[in-house]
Amino acid sequence: MTVVLTQNAYGKSSVRLTKVTRLPDGHELAQWTVDIQLTGEFAAAYTAGDNSGIVATDTMKNIVYALAREQELTAPETFGLALCEHFLAHYPQVAGCRVALLVEPYQRITINGVPHPHAFTGGEGGRRTCIVVGSRTVTTVAAGIEAIALLKTTDSAFRGFHRDSFTTLPEADDRILATLLDTTWRYTSTARDWNPLHAQVRQTLLQAFAEHKSLSVQQTLYAMGTAVLEKTPEVEEISLTMPNRHNLLVNLEPFGRDNPNCIFVPTSEPYGMISGTLRRE
Amino acid sequence: MTVVLTQNAYGKSSVRLTKVTRLPDGHELAQWTVDIQLTGEFAAAYTAGDNSGIVATDTMKNIVYALAREQELTAPETFGLALCEHFLAHYPQVAGCRVALLVEPYQRITINGVPHPHAFTGGEGGRRTCIVVGSRTVTTVAAGIEAIALLKTTDSAFRGFHRDSFTTLPEADDRILATLLDTTWRYTSTARDWNPLHAQVRQTLLQAFAEHKSLSVQQTLYAMGTAVLEKTPEVEEISLTMPNRHNLLVNLEPFGRDNPNCIFVPTSEPYGMISGTLRRE
Amino acid sequence: MTVVLTQNAYGKSSVRLTKVTRLPDGHELAQWTVDIQLTGEFAAAYTAGDNSGIVATDTMKNIVYALAREQELTAPETFGLALCEHFLAHYPQVAGCRVALLVEPYQRITINGVPHPHAFTGGEGGRRTCIVVGSRTVTTVAAGIEAIALLKTTDSAFRGFHRDSFTTLPEADDRILATLLDTTWRYTSTARDWNPLHAQVRQTLLQAFAEHKSLSVQQTLYAMGTAVLEKTPEVEEISLTMPNRHNLLVNLEPFGRDNPNCIFVPTSEPYGMISGTLRRE
Amino acid sequence: MTVVLTQNAYGKSSVRLTKVTRLPDGHELAQWTVDIQLTGEFAAAYTAGDNSGIVATDTMKNIVYALAREQELTAPETFGLALCEHFLAHYPQVAGCRVALLVEPYQRITINGVPHPHAFTGGEGGRRTCIVVGSRTVTTVAAGIEAIALLKTTDSAFRGFHRDSFTTLPEADDRILATLLDTTWRYTSTARDWNPLHAQVRQTLLQAFAEHKSLSVQQTLYAMGTAVLEKTPEVEEISLTMPNRHNLLVNLEPFGRDNPNCIFVPTSEPYGMISGTLRRE
Repeated sequence: MTVVLTQNAYGKSSVRLTKVTRLPDGHELAQWTVDIQLTGEFAAAYTAGDNSGIVATDTMKNIVYALAREQELTAPETFGLALCEHFLAHYPQVAGCRVALLVEPYQRITINGVPHPHAFTGGEGGRRTCIVVGSRTVTTVAAGIEAIALLKTTDSAFRGFHRDSFTTLPEADDRILATLLDTTWRYTSTARDWNPLHAQVRQTLLQAFAEHKSLSVQQTLYAMGTAVLEKTPEVEEISLTMPNRHNLLVNLEPFGRDNPNCIFVPTSEPYGMISGTLRRE
Repeated sequence: MTVVLTQNAYGKSSVRLTKVTRLPDGHELAQWTVDIQLTGEFAAAYTAGDNSGIVATDTMKNIVYALAREQELTAPETFGLALCEHFLAHYPQVAGCRVALLVEPYQRITINGVPHPHAFTGGEGGRRTCIVVGSRTVTTVAAGIEAIALLKTTDSAFRGFHRDSFTTLPEADDRILATLLDTTWRYTSTARDWNPLHAQVRQTLLQAFAEHKSLSVQQTLYAMGTAVLEKTPEVEEISLTMPNRHNLLVNLEPFGRDNPNCIFVPTSEPYGMISGTLRRE
Repeated sequence: MTVVLTQNAYGKSSVRLTKVTRLPDGHELAQWTVDIQLTGEFAAAYTAGDNSGIVATDTMKNIVYALAREQELTAPETFGLALCEHFLAHYPQVAGCRVALLVEPYQRITINGVPHPHAFTGGEGGRRTCIVVGSRTVTTVAAGIEAIALLKTTDSAFRGFHRDSFTTLPEADDRILATLLDTTWRYTSTARDWNPLHAQVRQTLLQAFAEHKSLSVQQTLYAMGTAVLEKTPEVEEISLTMPNRHNLLVNLEPFGRDNPNCIFVPTSEPYGMISGTLRRE
Repeated sequence: MTVVLTQNAYGKSSVRLTKVTRLPDGHELAQWTVDIQLTGEFAAAYTAGDNSGIVATDTMKNIVYALAREQELTAPETFGLALCEHFLAHYPQVAGCRVALLVEPYQRITINGVPHPHAFTGGEGGRRTCIVVGSRTVTTVAAGIEAIALLKTTDSAFRGFHRDSFTTLPEADDRILATLLDTTWRYTSTARDWNPLHAQVRQTLLQAFAEHKSLSVQQTLYAMGTAVLEKTPEVEEISLTMPNRHNLLVNLEPFGRDNPNCIFVPTSEPYGMISGTLRRE
């Protein structure tokens, strides 16, 4: 029997980083988590214990902190690109590098409407993410949002679906639609004005979710992705996963009460899981 | 040998509830989690399997949904009081009732500055909580915030602490102060204008944290609690627990770089854990 | 207005520790997590920023590692006592010390029935815990188990409970009883043969759970606690909390199938929560 | 601009199931979690709100419970195959079906060495998993283990790796190797004696981990995968991911103590992340 190593990769995960930039009128704060994965000529480490080409994951961690010192950490995309370039430029044995970044959502504490210069609190829902993937020939930048809660109390129906002997779900004309969106979108270029673009895509997603007359989670997902592609030419492709966090109408009849689409049980499990990827052509 | 049952309690936890109130100009949303614990004459269930006095926890769940139908769910404190009163009024075997509520932090999606009438997203950091404890003679209402992240990049020192042969921590003139505050405060009365009070205490805590020139987490905790008691006469007592989420300065010398209080490793463990309770006299 | 600090405590949490003891015929492994909390004359740190009496939590961490070097880490109770004594002996400002320990449940990998001398894997369910609380006058040792799953498929009923207009739960003659037991028991002395005692209490709890003809979770909790007190004179008091992790019978009638107590939905929420404390007299 | 839906899938996740099979000499217990994902002709639901081909995820859930009633739930692989076949056989619009199963690790409570007929407790580390993927032309069965902790206190080195100006990690002759293995392996056929095979692969992985003289996590991963392929001809391919859960030697010199590879800090973050896929040829 011959054993073949058909895939291998390694790297450092959960490298956590806080950078404080002390400007005259206040401090900038970045608290990010970085995951790095390398591919390339590393098979000998697996098959023969030959570590000569291995960049220690501890070294990767050091590189994150060293580069964070000299780079401006204003957008995770820029830092992901710098890290990716570093690994490709310094290590000929590296064929591919994937850098994933996650941004802790701090925002300034506001006092009498004035943002404080150096005090922060946990911010808006969801966490900004970024994935840079680079090789010797091509580099792509994707951005995203992780786990942003969305809920609408009307403008959501689910009718006309397939019925058979295992179907008990009634048709719904007006239901709650609740999800915890995970999404990433790939940009058409590696040089963009990342922060306004991210804010624009986020707002487009929220607006499309809010305004859609939903016939299904699938249709809303598609509407949200389409809105992003239509409004943001810098986005080439977008993937969305939307769990359907069911809110079940409670039967209050045993207690002599009606329930006109008013009282629900939000449930954690089971949940529907809907995904889709859209791209422009 | 005689065995004595010195404490017992039981109830239903994680009763999750969504209520939609459909007003002419938009929908109100409440998504809350309710925990109920009863004490009273229940020892016979433990010692003799006599369930005759036992209110089934399933019944407690039903009561939550039935009362949610008729109550306005504008403030969790009001609903906690209603639940507490229900259990005490309907069940003579109940001596004490504790209702804890947790509010999912939804806020309206905003489009062009206008809050949407029926679409919501995850909101500000931390989760609003409320604990109502009632007996035949007294009822107290406490409110709180769970797990709100706070971080300041300066105005925090830690000097002059005890040093001995096990001390290696250097004195710090200027460090990052980061915490994940849990706090509850007890009101002086069971009839208050709960929502503005909660917002005021929250803002007072944030402002005190931001503006304090901290000599220790302990001192900042005390300053925050004092600010609440000074500003809000409706609060009788406040408890705070503040983990010290250490951000450690990275040594960049091996890489030929300085680090003037700029690059840190945020850590999850170990962490300092500081608590205190303050009350007015 | 006068503000009074009515409670305060501080310490270091989640101090994680691995100790390897290299014996001739194999290695002993301890992987523990330690939480320390001190009380005493620390009010001035809160109220006046006076840190002169403060033992830095970083120093506490150092003490854990230094003492772990010289102590045999065979039982967490012994190490908890050593830590507690250290803080009381070295710091006159400390009035009380609470040390909580949690043991990672590693067990040896077995090959052809032979335990391996230095390779380990995750072990039995639940995690062993220990809490030592000491003051200038008295020290107590408690041990426990955290989150051990227990389930029996029969010998569990729930009948004869209170019924009223909010009751819909049918009486159950034969239901699944599933829980995730948390328990701690206090010993009568601070010098015991800790490991066999812990194993004996654990086994007594499992056996009592298995053999009990349960009329309620309350009654089973009491039977388990009683069994421990009866069998282990070294235990003075035991507290148990037992969530009722409901398994709901599925209605298969719509699909033309019966369901003779066979197919259930295990649920995470809501859940019953039952607690009790028993002591010998 | 044209928008194209390049990928879509949907299904029900976290369908939790308990089955009790009441045999004369004891009860069999299965507590499993099922995730189903379908692909096929569902684009119209996304793009046009046409639900006519949509099998509601609620119906999928019903099918899980209905089939669980009539199937013997002795091996998750068999049930995954039955579910997969059901969706492909009953719904012409389904092109592909992926069923993932996760087994709660209950084992019988043992009293005086005798396994109890109907009482269970949480069992061995890690959770058994299974993934069945079917289409109109081919079906594959993979099995796995999720999150099994492995640790060895010696026979692990890491030397001879690449060094440059960002490298600070010393060479290690004798370090702790700790991981939380996730692995799945694909079988060569869809009809196997699943339970003994799973037990054999599990034991092979543990033994290979224990006995390997490790020069790196990569090499140990490869040794473990190779051992499985060599010992179990029914396995065609195996993927392993092994985080390197670093245990860092504590510097006890400041406290006047040596530390001869004895006291370590187990860390959660950052961690190395090593993966590989091996197949026979």
